[in-house]
Formats: sequence, C-alpha cells, structure tokens
Amino acid sequence: MHRRIKLGMVGGGRGAFIGAVHRMAARLDDRYDLVAGALSSDPDRAAASAGDIGIASERSYADWQEMAQREGALRRSGQGGIEAVSIVTPNHLHARIAKAFLEEGIHIICDKPLTVSLDEALALQALAQRSGLLFVLTHTYTGYPLIRHARSLVAQGAIGELRLVQVEYSQDWWADAAALTGDGGWRENPAVAGPAGTLGDVGIHAYQLAAYVSGQQPSEISAELHTFMPGRVLDDHVQVMMRYANGARGTLWASQVATGCENALTLRVYGSTAQLRFNQEDPNVLWLTPQGGAAQRITRGRAESPAAMAATRIPAGHPEGYIEAFAQLYRDAADQILALESGGPKSAIADFLPGVDDGVAGHRFIETVLKSHRLNGAWLRLEQ
Amino acid sequence: MHRRIKLGMVGGGRGAFIGAVHRMAARLDDRYDLVAGALSSDPDRAAASAGDIGIASERSYADWQEMAQREGALRRSGQGGIEAVSIVTPNHLHARIAKAFLEEGIHIICDKPLTVSLDEALALQALAQRSGLLFVLTHTYTGYPLIRHARSLVAQGAIGELRLVQVEYSQDWWADAAALTGDGGWRENPAVAGPAGTLGDVGIHAYQLAAYVSGQQPSEISAELHTFMPGRVLDDHVQVMMRYANGARGTLWASQVATGCENALTLRVYGSTAQLRFNQEDPNVLWLTPQGGAAQRITRGRAESPAAMAATRIPAGHPEGYIEAFAQLYRDAADQILALESGGPKSAIADFLPGVDDGVAGHRFIETVLKSHRLNGAWLRLEQ
Amino acid sequence: MHRRIKLGMVGGGRGAFIGAVHRMAARLDDRYDLVAGALSSDPDRAAASAGDIGIASERSYADWQEMAQREGALRRSGQGGIEAVSIVTPNHLHARIAKAFLEEGIHIICDKPLTVSLDEALALQALAQRSGLLFVLTHTYTGYPLIRHARSLVAQGAIGELRLVQVEYSQDWWADAAALTGDGGWRENPAVAGPAGTLGDVGIHAYQLAAYVSGQQPSEISAELHTFMPGRVLDDHVQVMMRYANGARGTLWASQVATGCENALTLRVYGSTAQLRFNQEDPNVLWLTPQGGAAQRITRGRAESPAAMAATRIPAGHPEGYIEAFAQLYRDAADQILALESGGPKSAIADFLPGVDDGVAGHRFIETVLKSHRLNGAWLRLEQ
Amino acid sequence: MHRRIKLGMVGGGRGAFIGAVHRMAARLDDRYDLVAGALSSDPDRAAASAGDIGIASERSYADWQEMAQREGALRRSGQGGIEAVSIVTPNHLHARIAKAFLEEGIHIICDKPLTVSLDEALALQALAQRSGLLFVLTHTYTGYPLIRHARSLVAQGAIGELRLVQVEYSQDWWADAAALTGDGGWRENPAVAGPAGTLGDVGIHAYQLAAYVSGQQPSEISAELHTFMPGRVLDDHVQVMMRYANGARGTLWASQVATGCENALTLRVYGSTAQLRFNQEDPNVLWLTPQGGAAQRITRGRAESPAAMAATRIPAGHPEGYIEAFAQLYRDAADQILALESGGPKSAIADFLPGVDDGVAGHRFIETVLKSHRLNGAWLRLEQ
Repeated sequence: MHRRIKLGMVGGGRGAFIGAVHRMAARLDDRYDLVAGALSSDPDRAAASAGDIGIASERSYADWQEMAQREGALRRSGQGGIEAVSIVTPNHLHARIAKAFLEEGIHIICDKPLTVSLDEALALQALAQRSGLLFVLTHTYTGYPLIRHARSLVAQGAIGELRLVQVEYSQDWWADAAALTGDGGWRENPAVAGPAGTLGDVGIHAYQLAAYVSGQQPSEISAELHTFMPGRVLDDHVQVMMRYANGARGTLWASQVATGCENALTLRVYGSTAQLRFNQEDPNVLWLTPQGGAAQRITRGRAESPAAMAATRIPAGHPEGYIEAFAQLYRDAADQILALESGGPKSAIADFLPGVDDGVAGHRFIETVLKSHRLNGAWLRLEQ
Repeated sequence: MHRRIKLGMVGGGRGAFIGAVHRMAARLDDRYDLVAGALSSDPDRAAASAGDIGIASERSYADWQEMAQREGALRRSGQGGIEAVSIVTPNHLHARIAKAFLEEGIHIICDKPLTVSLDEALALQALAQRSGLLFVLTHTYTGYPLIRHARSLVAQGAIGELRLVQVEYSQDWWADAAALTGDGGWRENPAVAGPAGTLGDVGIHAYQLAAYVSGQQPSEISAELHTFMPGRVLDDHVQVMMRYANGARGTLWASQVATGCENALTLRVYGSTAQLRFNQEDPNVLWLTPQGGAAQRITRGRAESPAAMAATRIPAGHPEGYIEAFAQLYRDAADQILALESGGPKSAIADFLPGVDDGVAGHRFIETVLKSHRLNGAWLRLEQ
Repeated sequence: MHRRIKLGMVGGGRGAFIGAVHRMAARLDDRYDLVAGALSSDPDRAAASAGDIGIASERSYADWQEMAQREGALRRSGQGGIEAVSIVTPNHLHARIAKAFLEEGIHIICDKPLTVSLDEALALQALAQRSGLLFVLTHTYTGYPLIRHARSLVAQGAIGELRLVQVEYSQDWWADAAALTGDGGWRENPAVAGPAGTLGDVGIHAYQLAAYVSGQQPSEISAELHTFMPGRVLDDHVQVMMRYANGARGTLWASQVATGCENALTLRVYGSTAQLRFNQEDPNVLWLTPQGGAAQRITRGRAESPAAMAATRIPAGHPEGYIEAFAQLYRDAADQILALESGGPKSAIADFLPGVDDGVAGHRFIETVLKSHRLNGAWLRLEQ
Repeated sequence: MHRRIKLGMVGGGRGAFIGAVHRMAARLDDRYDLVAGALSSDPDRAAASAGDIGIASERSYADWQEMAQREGALRRSGQGGIEAVSIVTPNHLHARIAKAFLEEGIHIICDKPLTVSLDEALALQALAQRSGLLFVLTHTYTGYPLIRHARSLVAQGAIGELRLVQVEYSQDWWADAAALTGDGGWRENPAVAGPAGTLGDVGIHAYQLAAYVSGQQPSEISAELHTFMPGRVLDDHVQVMMRYANGARGTLWASQVATGCENALTLRVYGSTAQLRFNQEDPNVLWLTPQGGAAQRITRGRAESPAAMAATRIPAGHPEGYIEAFAQLYRDAADQILALESGGPKSAIADFLPGVDDGVAGHRFIETVLKSHRLNGAWLRLEQ
C-alpha cells in the first residue's frame, strides 16, 4: 500500500537553488507529499513561491515558528500535519528552526552545515537524541551508491589498515570578483554563514566524506585558511594536514577560487593492502587498486554490496548523478521514518544516513581548523 | 500558477523496468500527476500495481481500450480525464494503443521502437499528423543537454561539412545464456518484439542519435545481422556501413553480446573543420576537437547554447544522468502540451523532441537493414 | 661480451621521417652499429645524409644495388660487411631492395607495407623462406609490451572464444588540402605508394594488429573505399565488415581525413568471457573486462606475461612509448640474428616478431578490399 | 658534420637501474659516445660491467678519482679524454665526484639529489659557477615537452597571477616489507642516501617540478614527515603546506607507501585566469582550463611553443615517454656543451635545463622540511 510522508519545507523560495534540489530529491522516489512551507520570510514571496510549487495557500506560512506550531497541532490532532520538515535556509537559522520542529515531534531533514557553532550543534544533538526523532543532515555525497560501496569495502577490510587519506574539494565558483554578489552572496556574510566560508561550505563536505568512507576521524590537525579575493571577509581556501590515531596521515584541501574547477570533490584512501579512489564528478565509477596489481574500475549497478545495491535505481551503464544521490537521502529517510513511526527497529540503512552526529563532528573540525589557523598552523587535538 | 498535466500509463506494472523509469522521469520536474493506468493485462496485477504507485482503484484499468474510452470521455466532459498517456508495453502493442488514445484526443508519450513494422509506423504517423496532438517517442538520449548542444553546434556549422559518422551501442546484457530468460525475455520473441532484436532494441537508438546530431540520414546502407547465442531467434548483433548524400561515410555497430560493455553508446561525428564525440556513459562531457588543435572538454552546465541550458537543472560539476535525460523529454512534452492546449505556437524546444517522424525513419532503417542482410549485404537505398 | 650487429640502411636521407625513427629504434638498446647506407638516390644528398649521421664516406652509397653487392662481398670476406639492412624507402622499392640484400645473405628489417602487390609479396615470401634469413616487417605496434600481453592473454584463453573484433586507425593527417604536398606526398602517388592509400598506409596496421592479438584472420570481408579530398587519386578512407571462420564478426575502419584525430589506433576484442581494449595513444594501459565484472586496468611493467616483461625497459608508471615499441622490434631482431648466426634455435620471442608472412597476409587483405570495393561491397573470401 | 661528445660514467654497473636509463638517454639522439667509466667500486664488477656495454678495458676504472685524473689528462693532451661525465652513484658520493671532474674541466651530468646536505650543495654550486662548465642535474620530468610548454605558458601569463600549487608524487614502491631489500636498499640508509628518504627520492622531484613550471619557490613552509614501515629509519611519506610571496598557497605531498600508485607525479597550478594540469603517467597530454570555460587537452606534437617543439621527436599521437624526457636532458646538454666549447652564447634552451641551482634550491627545501618537522610543523621561512 502506497503511503507518502507529509513533508514541509522551510526556506527554498523563488530563486533559491538548494531548495529546488531538495524538492526534486523528495519527488524522485515518490515517498513524500510536500504539503506545507515557510518558503520565505517575506510574506508575499512566501505565498508566491508556495503557489509556484502547488502548496495550498492555507499551508503556506510566512513564519516558520507559526508553521511549526500549526503543523505540530495538525499532526497531533490527526488532521494531516507534516511528519517531516526540510530545512533549507541560510546556515544561521538551522539550529533554531530544527529545535522548533523537533519540539513539535517532527522529523528533520536539514541542509549542511548543521549550525554556525559547535555549541549550537551540541545542544541540537542533545535535543535530537532525546526526541527519538530522525535527524538527517544532507551530506549529499553519501547518497552515491559507490560511496556506500567504498565505505562497505573499507569496513570489510578490503584495503587493510588505513594509511593515507587525501581528500579535496575544489571549485571555481568564487574565483572571480563577480562571484561576490548574487543569490549565494550570503555565503560570504559571517552573520549568516557563520565563521567559516569555503571551510563550511565545501570543506566540511570533504571532511565528512573522508570520515564516512574511512570510518575514522583524524585525532590531530594543522590548518591554514586563506582569503584570496579582495573585499571578502571569510576564507575562500583551506588546507589541512591530518594525523590519525593509528598513525595514518592525510591532507584535506578545499578551495572556491580554484580556477577551472567545477565540483572537484575527490577522495583517495590508501590502506596497507589496497587503494580506493572516487571522484564526485564521475560518480558511477569507483577505483579499487590492490597493492602491485591492476586497478579495478567498479561501476554503479555492478557493485554488489547491499548498501550500494539499495541505492541504485537503474542498471549499470545508464548513469545516475547528483540528484539521485540527494534523492537517496530522502528515500532512506522515508524508510527510517516509517520504521520509527511503526516502532520497528532501525534498518541497516540507518547507519548509512548522515545525521546530527556528522554535524557535530563537522563543527568540531571547523572550530579546530579556525583555532589552528589563529595559532599559525599549530597541531591541535581534534576531540571525537 | 502551478498546473500539473494529468497523465495515464499503459504497461509498467510490477517488475517492469522501463515503466518505473518513465514514472521517475514524469515526477522529477513536477509537471504531471499520474492519475490513471492500465498497468497490466492481468486484472489482479493491474490493480495491485496501481495500488503500489498511488493510482486510485477507479482509475486503474485492466484493459487499455476501456481506459482510452473512459478517460477520453472524462476529459471531454471536463471531469479530469487524462491529457496524455505514456505507452510502455512491449513493442507489438504500441501502434494499437497509440491509435486508440490519439482517437480520444490524448497526447502520446511512447517508448521506442514506435511499432513493429514500417507500415504500422506510417499509418501511425499519418494519424498523429492529422490529430494535431503531441507524439513523443522516448529516444532518451536526446534528452541529454550535451546531445542537444552537439546538435546545435552541428547546425551552426561548428564542424563544417559532414564527413564521417561513427556510432555504436554495445551492451553485454545478452552475452550469457542466462540472459535468455527473465523480464526482458519478450525482447527475443519476434511476435512481441518485432522482426528486429538488438537492431530494434539498441541499434535504433544509435541510428536515431546519429541522425539527430548530424542532421542527416544516410542515403544508402549495407548491413549484416548476426545471432551469436544458440537458441536465439532474433539478431543480437548488427553492423552497418553507411553512405550519405553529400559523400559522407559512416559505420554503425550495435551488439548485446559485447562482453564487458554496459551501455556503451558512443557517437563520433567528423566534419571538414572539427570533430564531436559523445559517450552516453559519461554524459556530462562533450568533446569538440578542431582540426589540428586541442580537444575541448565541454561540460554540462557550461555549454551555453539555449537548447543545452534549457535541459540543465543543476550547475556544472554536479552530474546529471540518464533519469534527468528521460525527465527532459517529459518536461519538454509538458511545455508542448500546454502550448498546444492554449493554441500557442510550438516553442523552439519542439524541434529537439523526438517524435513519430523519428519512429518512421527508424523503421525505414530497420526494414532496409533487414533487407540488405537478406541480400548478403547489398547496398540499398534508404528512403527518407 | 658486447657485440653490436653491423647494420645498413636504404632510404632515410635528410628530411625523411621514418628513417630517423628506425635509427633511434636501432640505437636505443645498443645492439647495432649503423655503418653503411644508401640514404638517397641522389648522390649528393646521399653523401650529405651519411655525413650527418656519422656513416663513413666509403660506406655511403648512392645506389642500393651497389651497396648490396659491396657489403655482401665485405661480409663474405670477413671485412665487416653489414649483417642486416633496414629498408625505409617508399613502398614500390621494398621488394626489389629486399631481394637484392637477401641474395647477398643479409638479414632484412623492412618498413611496411611489404610491397605494392600480392604477387610481389608472395615472391618475396618464397625467397625469404628459402634464404633462412631473418625478415622483419616493422609493424611497430606489435612492439608494445601490452600488445604482446594482450596476444598472450588471448592465446591462453583469457577471453574465451573470439566473438567480436573492432579495430580502427583514424588520423587527420590528410584532412586538409595542405596535406597534399610535402615529404609524405609520395603516399598519394600510386606509382610509388601502390594501389592502396590510407588502406595501405594505416589500414594495414589496423588489420595486422587485430590478427596479431586475436590470433585469427577473417575468412570473408565486405569493403568500401572512399576518397574525400578533391584531386587525390588514392583512397583516404576505408571501412570493412569482417566475418571469421568461427562465426565471429568485426569491423575495421581507417581514415586519414578524420578531423581531430592524431594516431587513434584502437583495438577491441570481445570473447565469450571477457573483453580486451587497447589504444595506441595510451600504450601503457591495457583493459581487460570480464563479463559482468569490473574492468581491470593492466599497466606496462605490471603485466607479468613473459612476452610483456621481455619488452619492458623501465618500471611501471614511467611511460614507454612509440620509439620503445619500434626499438623492441630491433632488439628482438638482434636476438634472432644472433641465434640464427650461431645456429641456435629461434627463441620464444620469434613468434612475436612480425615478418614476411604478416606482409603477405596484409597484401591478401589489401587486394580483397580493393576487389570488394570494385564489386560495390560484395562479400569476398579472404584466402589465408 | 656529425660530432659525438665523449662521455664517461661513474656508477651504473651491472644491475644498477638508473645508470642503464642514463645510457639509453645518452644514446637515443646519437650525441654521445660512452668511452670511459668507473662503473663500480668493485674492480671485477667494474671491468665486467664495462665489457657488457662496450667500454674498452683501458678506459674502465675501478676508481673514480683515477678516472677523473686520467681522463682530464687525456683531454688536456688532445688524446680524446672525456668531455662530460654522468654521475649515477648513490647520493652521498655525488658532491665529491662532481668536484673531482669539475676540477679536471669536465662537464657534469649528475643524477638527483645533488648532494646529501645544503652545505655540500652550496660548495658545489660555487665551484660549478667558477668553473664555467655545464652542470646538469637530471630532474627528468623537465625533459617532457609538455612540461616545457606549461612553463612557457605560465611565463607568458597564460594563467594570470599564480594562486594555487598542488603537487604530489605518490608511489607504492616501498609499500611492502619486501621493499626493504634489493638494489634500491641504499635509499633507506642515511649514510648513503642522506637524511631525507622519500623526501629526497621523489619529494624533491615534486618540489622542483612545481617551481620549474610556476616560476616561483614558496617563501614559507610547514611540513611533516612520517615513517610507516617498521624498521625503516628514513621518512617514507611527507606532506607540506606552502605559502608564496605573492599570497599564493600550495600543498606538496609525496609518499612511497601509497598502495596502488606507480609514479603518480601530478602537478596542478591555478592562476587568476586559468588552470594547468599535468600527470607524469600520461605525459603526452597537458590540460589548460580557462576560468569558466572548457578544458583544453593539449597534446605533445601540437603544443607549438618553441621549447615544446624543440623537445619533440615524433608527431602527435605517437607517444613519447620517460626515456625520451631523459634523453632530452642529454640532447640539450650536448647543445650547451658544444656552445660552451665554441665560446658561443648559451642557447634559449639553457634556461630549460635543470642544474646546480635547482639542486641548491632542493636542498634548501629538504633542510627546511626537516627542520619544520622537528619543530612539529612550525612555519619556517624558505630562503631563496
């Protein structure tokens, strides 16, 4: 029997890029009905945006607090209030909005970064844990089948003991002066984006992905931020050296001024017996190279781990992409919500869904990078 | 104001691969509501399949003829009958079903191949033209933004005069004896698939894509079919040499017994001044190489022709894939249907949508290949 | 004890491209001393060319017949006459020159094509066989370690039974009108190049490589030649369909008007259990893809067949290229000459050296292609 | 008129890898005669090695000091003493040997690293400068035509102002315990290799290449060494963060325990207007990507800068490789030696030949890395 989860959205009004992506992701596998929204803090724009996407006017809110209360009440009274909410506002609002909906018993799907500070993140983590509700943080790249396959391979010992991690995320989106304006402009404003620029926008993706696949967080880091573009307040470049508890080493590099780069998020993990390599721009391919042997080009659809197969829609050779990876988080979230609602156990997929703990780890990383940078690259312990 | 087109589907019940893909494609851009279906000729399976995907039981039909009549009547009486139907049955039914819905004034989105014979195709073409309705034939690969960009480049003279066409579509899906069974088994049955095996299943995609991008059909061909797997009746391999009216030459090769191939549809077009190259497995990249110069790696999202930009959802570097290409046909169809319904002119996009004419051209190709093969590869004129 | 073979050269004077390549190839592994030459039929140019490359004036000849006689006499009288000769003239002279030197007991290293007709080729084959001398035909690409590895893999059954062969050699060297002049101009002159243009210049390489790796010649072919550039007499494009005795099928395509192509010689061989793929422009990589599995990227230096290791000079990851492949033929020839001179058995490598038999097979192919073309693509039996 | 330079060699006896490579490099372009050698410090092995490669026994020395004196005397007396010497011993001997031959007026071609300490390097630099002799340090990768093209492009402003440098050299050669023995074993012995392991063996190549192409040395670095393999004394891994005087940033990473890597030396340089990318394992390709535009795949043979064309032997599409790059240094050295001997001016190529200054810069880098590592990654000024 077909059952769609009732979904709301905060943020994502006209012209907002990531909100539209969340909606495509929610639609693709037909597990949600988007029935309510506070799409903009501007009432007219909120209403117009809701009309654009078929949200009934009585379920369109200009204020997310009102939305949380009304939808919570509708839900409790059995009148079809939303069961989950997507939070796609600028960063500084994530924590407050998430708190409000959690308190109304509504599951959360939140864009990254989780918040704008570690303290906020820790408070939200505590609340989420107490609530028993699902909290998904949309680290999109974890939705790629081959990232899940890579993670499964590492967990099964396919690369031996971890030795090296090389991860980078380079873009050219902020490489021109012209990039300083426009829809993404808030990303450069510390009051909205938080204290981390490129570090928080894409560096945190690189960090999370490396930890997700390798199964390990570094224990110490040495970092440097840099701002290339005149007039910019936040960093647009970050480089980090990493040490792991078992002696492994690593480098993380993220830049939004890397001319000629689109979304060059690449991860390489080297163990004692094999190497894994993944490039987000070519996500239907994963490379596994055993020491001394031929590299194996593993393709989506032919990677047979359960986690990879569960994230695959169409056969090998017909490429899936970023939207499908995003949709995977929504699909997994739907499964988890139904399991939670029915009191059933979490499925195996739960471990593959990024959540509030990833968010806290990310903010520990951000704060330690900021501190190391202030200390001219001092090696600092990264708490777990 | 948001307005979703009311869509029906014939075929695509439980376990059917391509029906599910059509539904994802229809959902992605939120332009359709799937409200009716004759998903299977087996009444129980039809009902169960409808329930699976949220079609109301009163709009689920076990018989497509009944569906056409009832939905046509609902539509004419203003009671919300479907405006368009997706036909995703095995090949031999396409023509009859399309005819029935056209006669009810319902727009058609039909999986390829159009029919199982040229005669059927011609009759359907005549009917479609008389009807004034939209007829989309889902040659999926024409939905890739960079295929549209390639077509635009050729039309603008970016490669000079056409000189060579090399197109191939190789799969390994039928490369084992085990491939002879299962859901796709009907593809080997001439009574259902028609007289062409691999030729009709993937060869026709290769043929259509080459014509779509180059803007030209060959004027003469010499062909050979082959069946490798014992017990198979239809061809599982085809090779064709082509001559074009302007003197250009080409080769088409399609195989479903090409071990180790997934969906290796590649197109290379060489003109007097430049070369274009596209590989369906890597669809976010198009290669343009001027004579004597450096190859240019054009990426989706940075290919600035209007046709390419109109088929792009997310920025360069975040890959789109096969589902998005498929969705593009649905999105374009929605635009055309609204234009037709409002009496407005066809949009520029209309020229990029594959339709019944592509189907007729495909069947001319199929019949000529079959005939050349029977004549041991004789060069035969290909009517236009 | 170091022993260099005394080598002569016919052709290869100032400005001649391929002669210089032969000399680099002969030098690389230090197995030859180039001590005599008839580098040009123009006496002044012959002398000047000899001086350029350090051939003593008394061993520089303006006439290859004189050279054959004098060097043969020097050799027989123990005065250090050449033991081997490299023939690098335009095609029409190969047969006569080779005959003259064979009759003097001098081993032959001859550029391809062997001759300009099958009759000449057969006569030369008979003479070479009677002579007991080494006759190497420089099908350069057979010197690549990974081509030898591919051949070894096929011979060992690594791809199962042969099913498909796809081979092509596309260049843009003759793609402009400007290409009609210059040093390579003789390649367009039938009196010098023979009756085959692109077919004889690069098509024959593609044909030989496919046979070398697959271990099979086609039994029937259907072919078409074409000449794109106005004013050109010989073909600049050829396409061929092939049938093999075991039912395998194939396509060969060669062009020198393929805009934007450099030396795109690619070979794909599909068997019942795996696929092999090689691209001459990336010769340190060989792809082996088992049916349904991950492609394996085999690299030179880590391909462990004896034939591959014997053709490798430096470790994996430091690329070798075309000159090394060419040098491999010279190195293997040196081993064979020493074995023949010492009366010892042929080494295992002998089977990997292309020779007069490859030349005869090539001319059978050329003549059958020419005939099929004249018969508008009729399928013709290819004698073995 | 052909004139070969008389060359000697110190080191490179039987079984020594790099000596054999130097000899191939010296032979390829026929600019040298190798006439003398002290191939081993073991007299029997020296004599046997000389015999292997055709060095006359009277020019085979067991002692390089004797060789320097005798050959210097032969040269001064017009009796054909060597004009240049190749030094291919383990690192710790480079400085003493180079000094001895410089003092005899003999040009130097020395394998890297220059010495085992900065002090030695500076002394050698001073001596070399005073001598007026040629001193080539074989940073092989600078011999690749496309590296020279990249350098030319940067110098001409093709990437705008330098912004980011990402360079890495990863190998798996020392990734197993088994790697600890064998011919390369001395590389792990500080008394022979010097204080830097991977840092001196391959890290220094990465450093030199980045400086060579970008035209800039970093002004400050923060570094960490690591030793993964038990029982190893020297580093087998190094990671470095770099700051440049103009504000540019960079990362260098080198490892010989990177499982599954062959010779993965890759350089990426990002400027304000474009990006350059080069991968040593694919050296016939250079990528130039203008900001926001299509990447251009520039190929060897079609890269038209004078420096690139002068380092190219064969047309585009027929790959050249590592041996040709090495040979290029020998070819350039020959040109320079002849220019110096004739009192003529240095040619334009002189600027493209790596020499003693590169060696000094390398040792400054090594010593600063070692010091930063001892100071737990402190940022230290790198003197120029």
